[in-house]
Amino acid sequence: MRKVAIIGCGMTKFGKHENATLMDLLTEASLKALDDSNLDNKQIDAVYVGNMGSLLLNHQTGLATALTANLNLLPAAVDTVQNGTASGSSAIKNGFLAVASGYFDKVLVAAGEKMRVTTGNEITDFIATMTHPEAEYAQGVTLPSLAGMFTRLYMHKYGVERKHLAMVAAKNHKNALKNPYAHIHKAVTVDDILYPEKSGIKNPVIADPLRLYDCCPVSDGAASVILCPLEEAKKYIDTPVEIIGFGQATEVQAVHEREDPTEIKSLRIAAKKAFEIAKVEPKDVDVAELHDAFTILEIAESEEAGFFKKGEGHKALEEGLTEIGGKIPINPSGGLKARGHPVGATGAAQIVELVWQLRNEAGERQVENAEIGFSCNFFSFGSNVVAFVLKRGD
Amino acid sequence: MRKVAIIGCGMTKFGKHENATLMDLLTEASLKALDDSNLDNKQIDAVYVGNMGSLLLNHQTGLATALTANLNLLPAAVDTVQNGTASGSSAIKNGFLAVASGYFDKVLVAAGEKMRVTTGNEITDFIATMTHPEAEYAQGVTLPSLAGMFTRLYMHKYGVERKHLAMVAAKNHKNALKNPYAHIHKAVTVDDILYPEKSGIKNPVIADPLRLYDCCPVSDGAASVILCPLEEAKKYIDTPVEIIGFGQATEVQAVHEREDPTEIKSLRIAAKKAFEIAKVEPKDVDVAELHDAFTILEIAESEEAGFFKKGEGHKALEEGLTEIGGKIPINPSGGLKARGHPVGATGAAQIVELVWQLRNEAGERQVENAEIGFSCNFFSFGSNVVAFVLKRGD
Repeated sequence: MRKVAIIGCGMTKFGKHENATLMDLLTEASLKALDDSNLDNKQIDAVYVGNMGSLLLNHQTGLATALTANLNLLPAAVDTVQNGTASGSSAIKNGFLAVASGYFDKVLVAAGEKMRVTTGNEITDFIATMTHPEAEYAQGVTLPSLAGMFTRLYMHKYGVERKHLAMVAAKNHKNALKNPYAHIHKAVTVDDILYPEKSGIKNPVIADPLRLYDCCPVSDGAASVILCPLEEAKKYIDTPVEIIGFGQATEVQAVHEREDPTEIKSLRIAAKKAFEIAKVEPKDVDVAELHDAFTILEIAESEEAGFFKKGEGHKALEEGLTEIGGKIPINPSGGLKARGHPVGATGAAQIVELVWQLRNEAGERQVENAEIGFSCNFFSFGSNVVAFVLKRGD
Repeated sequence: MRKVAIIGCGMTKFGKHENATLMDLLTEASLKALDDSNLDNKQIDAVYVGNMGSLLLNHQTGLATALTANLNLLPAAVDTVQNGTASGSSAIKNGFLAVASGYFDKVLVAAGEKMRVTTGNEITDFIATMTHPEAEYAQGVTLPSLAGMFTRLYMHKYGVERKHLAMVAAKNHKNALKNPYAHIHKAVTVDDILYPEKSGIKNPVIADPLRLYDCCPVSDGAASVILCPLEEAKKYIDTPVEIIGFGQATEVQAVHEREDPTEIKSLRIAAKKAFEIAKVEPKDVDVAELHDAFTILEIAESEEAGFFKKGEGHKALEEGLTEIGGKIPINPSGGLKARGHPVGATGAAQIVELVWQLRNEAGERQVENAEIGFSCNFFSFGSNVVAFVLKRGD
């Protein structure tokens, strides 16, 4: 069980890339990561590509192999890992296991998605392919509809109000303004979101009580990381970041079958495992990247990960504890809400942000003295969650 | 680096499954494998699903998570691995690494495809998504067209004749007659294939010189295996099979860019790695499952794997060396040609056949005293190949 470090990372800007193919995006992010790692191409012996939709959206399944040839990494061992909106994290997990096993030494993980090639309705349907095949998808259930019902229950049970949802959006938009890689660069206040007739922003209902500003955008983009055994990391880079813990857990996929649909049991189990392996506790975390595909999720996840008691995430938000400079800054990158959500790329983008934070390279959005980072990445509506704990190398 | 054993396997019949969903097929194969392993459900801590096409063909990406819930394996860590027509082998490779790493103990690998839901033209296009995105796919290149050109070059260079291609088909059809899981149960002779006007079989040109009987059928099906650390295997089963070697290698995806398009360099490298790790040589192999999606491939692969010298595979075939009872029986299952080729399932089906052979459970098609088995599984036209060497446990 070798220890594993991240010695390089890179990403494209997230947003609409009209003139780039998915392979272009994966290539750009990977070249940046390779450059960052100071590795020679020929040292890479395995590649994992994280992607959810290329077969349907781009009509391609050969991207992983084409990318490997493009980057001159042949004959590296290459696979694509699909875990829906958590594909990026699952690709990193499998790259981690490949290095930990001792069979592979230097691994590139490239995760990306090019989604803005089709209509909004088709994207909604594409995302819905993650729901339970018979119990949900066949009945017309969509992800925003599940998120709307989840939000309503959460409001009822814990006193969350629409202003709290708006606080998540406003905070993450503010953070994204300081992130040159973010999809959305637009300042909005809580009042702008709550009173669109006054502020003039467009904020139509998506799935009541969720409005447009409660949902992440549809983005193109890619993010890549390079992994190697910790013991060798300093040969390549002064500031390696160690993956000290990971956890993954599944839960009943059909949300209505869950004992308590306001709980995200998979996240609780995944985070617990990640913290156990890492031998740290939630209170030790300095910076976190959570999966805020819908605003309510940042609140719920901040509780299930152990940062706040169940039902108190919205109060922490009110107190500013999750701002950059607060007790536990959440989504300094802007999160899925404002950095954007090219689905297959997101898990890797979370890790790239944490690496930059732990290396003190996050510019204007830097969290001071960040030593321990946490990420969690969701498949579907939380039926498969991957969590990581990272630590700045000594 | 823990040693890894296969302690259970199962598969569905391959063929046309009108009344079963892909999830039904994955579930059936996995229940058989779990039953075979004597494990308790709750012991499974990770699941890998091998699948290529469910997003496009079945409009589902949530199958891995749904399967885990179906089988009562929650909260096991679950991912889908996509490596096109080698997805089954790549899923097993990643399950192997998960156990070898020490992070996971009991792993289910379930690989499957449900292809017979659409038209032949759409399947041809679906398969073509594996070719190089710009250099091949966009130009209208299909897999059968590549195989046709490869065959023509091979005939020209090595004196392979159409009768040799027919020998592959006739042998594999014969073997499949003894395999209750095979898609095609139909005896054909070399003459039947070469003289269809006489035999009355339909054997139209697919991509000259390839005829229908040179191509694998379009199949539905699933195959599953259970992995665990070798040191624990005997607790569960009397006859564990050890994965003593694996190799994976990529090659330039666009076939016209290869130095010598009649070579399958990726297979040579993958097989060499697998044999090196296994510390055995090709001559030690007792039974092999090769990727005969087109008849020519069985001949070419038998050379690149090291069983015969380059250009002599067709002579070995003439001499009957690859028959059951020959020096190195190839595709006793019937291969892709006659067992069938539900693309994501194939790599796992190869391993299931080898396990049955090594456990002396292959019935009428049993290879006597088989101790060492070899498999290789292709992505696209050999641009990504995964090979395994298995050994009967003591």
